Amino acid sequence: MQDNLNQKDRVYFEVRDYECDIQGIVNNAVYQNYLEHARHQFIKSRGLDFAEITAQGIYLVLIKAELDYIQSMHSGDAFYIQSSIERVSKLKLNFLQKVHRTDNDQLILSAKMTVTSTTKEGKPIVDHLVAS
Amino acid sequence: MQDNLNQKDRVYFEVRDYECDIQGIVNNAVYQNYLEHARHQFIKSRGLDFAEITAQGIYLVLIKAELDYIQSMHSGDAFYIQSSIERVSKLKLNFLQKVHRTDNDQLILSAKMTVTSTTKEGKPIVDHLVAS
Amino acid sequence: MQDNLNQKDRVYFEVRDYECDIQGIVNNAVYQNYLEHARHQFIKSRGLDFAEITAQGIYLVLIKAELDYIQSMHSGDAFYIQSSIERVSKLKLNFLQKVHRTDNDQLILSAKMTVTSTTKEGKPIVDHLVAS
Amino acid sequence: MQDNLNQKDRVYFEVRDYECDIQGIVNNAVYQNYLEHARHQFIKSRGLDFAEITAQGIYLVLIKAELDYIQSMHSGDAFYIQSSIERVSKLKLNFLQKVHRTDNDQLILSAKMTVTSTTKEGKPIVDHLVAS
Repeated sequence: MQDNLNQKDRVYFEVRDYECDIQGIVNNAVYQNYLEHARHQFIKSRGLDFAEITAQGIYLVLIKAELDYIQSMHSGDAFYIQSSIERVSKLKLNFLQKVHRTDNDQLILSAKMTVTSTTKEGKPIVDHLVAS
Repeated sequence: MQDNLNQKDRVYFEVRDYECDIQGIVNNAVYQNYLEHARHQFIKSRGLDFAEITAQGIYLVLIKAELDYIQSMHSGDAFYIQSSIERVSKLKLNFLQKVHRTDNDQLILSAKMTVTSTTKEGKPIVDHLVAS
Repeated sequence: MQDNLNQKDRVYFEVRDYECDIQGIVNNAVYQNYLEHARHQFIKSRGLDFAEITAQGIYLVLIKAELDYIQSMHSGDAFYIQSSIERVSKLKLNFLQKVHRTDNDQLILSAKMTVTSTTKEGKPIVDHLVAS
Repeated sequence: MQDNLNQKDRVYFEVRDYECDIQGIVNNAVYQNYLEHARHQFIKSRGLDFAEITAQGIYLVLIKAELDYIQSMHSGDAFYIQSSIERVSKLKLNFLQKVHRTDNDQLILSAKMTVTSTTKEGKPIVDHLVAS
């Protein structure tokens, strides 16, 4: 249940005009930007900085993305992304991410993003994220 | 088989530096830009201009995206996207899209993008695309 | 003096990882996104919604941009943009925009962005913005 | 005269739909993407790869951008960017860049982009670019 999730795992956003396309709605690709930012904030809240681990040569890479686009968003819309994780294997985990409108909690988009570490050095990171 | 697909349904690209992120590789979200451009070129080759049909009030919207990220790409890499379609229902169709390196045809990314028309006015467009 | 400017004309941001490029710093083009968002928030605080006036056929367009890049920003950096305006002519105005770090107020970027309305219908909007 | 410039310093583009905003025209910030790509292609044609020199720790950074937006571009428009350089000082040079429509050579945007190397190690690069 969403209500059981930690509220600190919500990241709040507001749609900026430059993120909308000729249809006047948030472009499909922009949701992947939002989701990435929410994942990196999630990791940061567990003490891991994405830019830092990248500089250390530990690469977390997306290997599969599944996005269900349920509603469109327009200029100025306020929303939040709730993220949680589940382990898939030693080096692999899923981020389950949901985009909701801030004012009425309506579901905008639901995503399952599978991330892996490309080297064994990533295992402690995956362990740490799943345990926390 | 890829070889049975029409070569004209290939759109050629080259990675630009601003499309790469702090990992030095093409950012995940940018692939959705590439794929959208390839879909719109596909539609255009069937006589439909995305900006024009949008201006007419006929909206084709993405409702589901599934992307398998197989390899990374770096600055300057040349690649092409091959697209084909399959009908799912009256108003819905799948774009099957594959990103390949130009020099050795290696598979970079494979995607199934489900698109629908939000109004009945879109049905002739879906019919036209599937028939052509 | 910056201190004389209205604090409500500050828009606060935080650098997101996808806005950084292979140099590990915010890409030059991204500052124009930030500045546009700050201008649209400025206009909104004066009762004008950019998406709405665009839908009404009143186009405010950028005709000249001058940006001085003074410092770089990295992943996670917090900053704010302070905007003010000055009239240039009947249909034209300058946005004077400064990007500062939130923690120490250091200047990151300074910009003068000249905006005009392409039709006479834009004159009341320019009048309203300058007067308010 | 533009005609005296080397034709090989032209980089050709076509507007992609995702580069257009709610006004239906190419977003202002996107021109900086185009211009950066044209500069990096210019450098590459002189034997310097931007990603490679960055990896070597030699940073070429933009310190000033002046852009005159003369015409708008829409979905599908074909254009080219012509670049030339002039030395400003030991470590600093200007890129003079013009965006023209491909079909009728109309001027879309004119820019002067001042680039510097942040370390002395960049001097041979600036020398090489100006000499070539």
